[in-house]
Amino acid sequence: MLPIVCVVGASNSGKTTFLEKLIPELSGRGYRIGTVKHDAHGFEMDREGKDTWKHRKAGAGTIAISSPAQVATIRTVEREMELAEVAARFFWSEDLVITEGFKRSHYPKIEIFRKAVEATPICGPEDNLLALVTDDAIQADVPSFRFEDVSGVADLIEERFLRNRRKHGIAMFFDGKNVPMNDFVRDFLSKAILGMLASLKGWKKPKKIDIQIRLEDGD
Amino acid sequence: MLPIVCVVGASNSGKTTFLEKLIPELSGRGYRIGTVKHDAHGFEMDREGKDTWKHRKAGAGTIAISSPAQVATIRTVEREMELAEVAARFFWSEDLVITEGFKRSHYPKIEIFRKAVEATPICGPEDNLLALVTDDAIQADVPSFRFEDVSGVADLIEERFLRNRRKHGIAMFFDGKNVPMNDFVRDFLSKAILGMLASLKGWKKPKKIDIQIRLEDGD
Repeated sequence: MLPIVCVVGASNSGKTTFLEKLIPELSGRGYRIGTVKHDAHGFEMDREGKDTWKHRKAGAGTIAISSPAQVATIRTVEREMELAEVAARFFWSEDLVITEGFKRSHYPKIEIFRKAVEATPICGPEDNLLALVTDDAIQADVPSFRFEDVSGVADLIEERFLRNRRKHGIAMFFDGKNVPMNDFVRDFLSKAILGMLASLKGWKKPKKIDIQIRLEDGD
Repeated sequence: MLPIVCVVGASNSGKTTFLEKLIPELSGRGYRIGTVKHDAHGFEMDREGKDTWKHRKAGAGTIAISSPAQVATIRTVEREMELAEVAARFFWSEDLVITEGFKRSHYPKIEIFRKAVEATPICGPEDNLLALVTDDAIQADVPSFRFEDVSGVADLIEERFLRNRRKHGIAMFFDGKNVPMNDFVRDFLSKAILGMLASLKGWKKPKKIDIQIRLEDGD
């Protein structure tokens, strides 16, 4: 349901700089944009001495902080969370998620390629490459854009992922893993569940329904 | 399903200090603890100049950063998110959520009361007060603990919310709002949905099932 596009490229190719132009271009067209940054080494979001930092230090595995203008959370994980789960958990009202990094994911990719930085692009045809953004006159099997052609890249994203996109649908996660479903199962499940919910007292068709079922047995 | 306890009290009563003892006491007993800090004024999680900060500045309404050891997200909101939604969105594998603040919520509360700070406790009987932690010999309708009796408070929380707790169950959110259900509806819905899912190819009973249905129509 929620499209994900990965902006990838070698270090210092200019991914962040390009995103700083692409995000306002797309949000200026009315789309709600979320981003995910991949960090291989560990980041520091919280600051030593803050209350949330103290909570974590005392052993809270997940902390959140909520204010009238923003809400944030930090969660300790045992292994890196899959991008599909990150997107499904944290971006419930966005139209598009753009990632910085995640070259090894299976999602469609836009590579930032600067010939002074790397000899050849880091993505091959097997990497689900959608386009190159480059200062090189490289011959590629995918559309190639100059760095200044932000609106061209936005057009491509809009055309491929945002226009005529089905905003309704059903997604399901078992233990955090996305469950692939064919159209028949998708349609059957969403209609069956909606049919049951519509018989609840006071039902007014909401735009978003989230159902959480937990099956651990108490001991 | 997920119990929430609010630790409240006047400024400088010692809420954070008490939480720094209560969290390890409870996690030492094997419970996974999450915390939520209430911040009335706005907090700064991200740092100027970081890539995630640049994404937000460029117009991303929600950003996430993911590494092998932790994952974090910051979301811009138009009004403060309800505590029930914060808990449901961000704490999917915890046993208990303890908040610092949120005096005005309807959740059970433990008040930290220090007579040098305030003349009387800030919570009355209408505030769903569960216990006082205090240095005063105050007469109260609820159990009263000394500051050093962290294990006594942990016993109370364990007894009330953690022992014999039904870990299985169903929770449902329409447009982010928790949908109250009686036991019959709860049981009917979870059994009906599980029955349908169990007929899926390759079904292995997971511990957590998350279903997201979106009904916005594409235009």
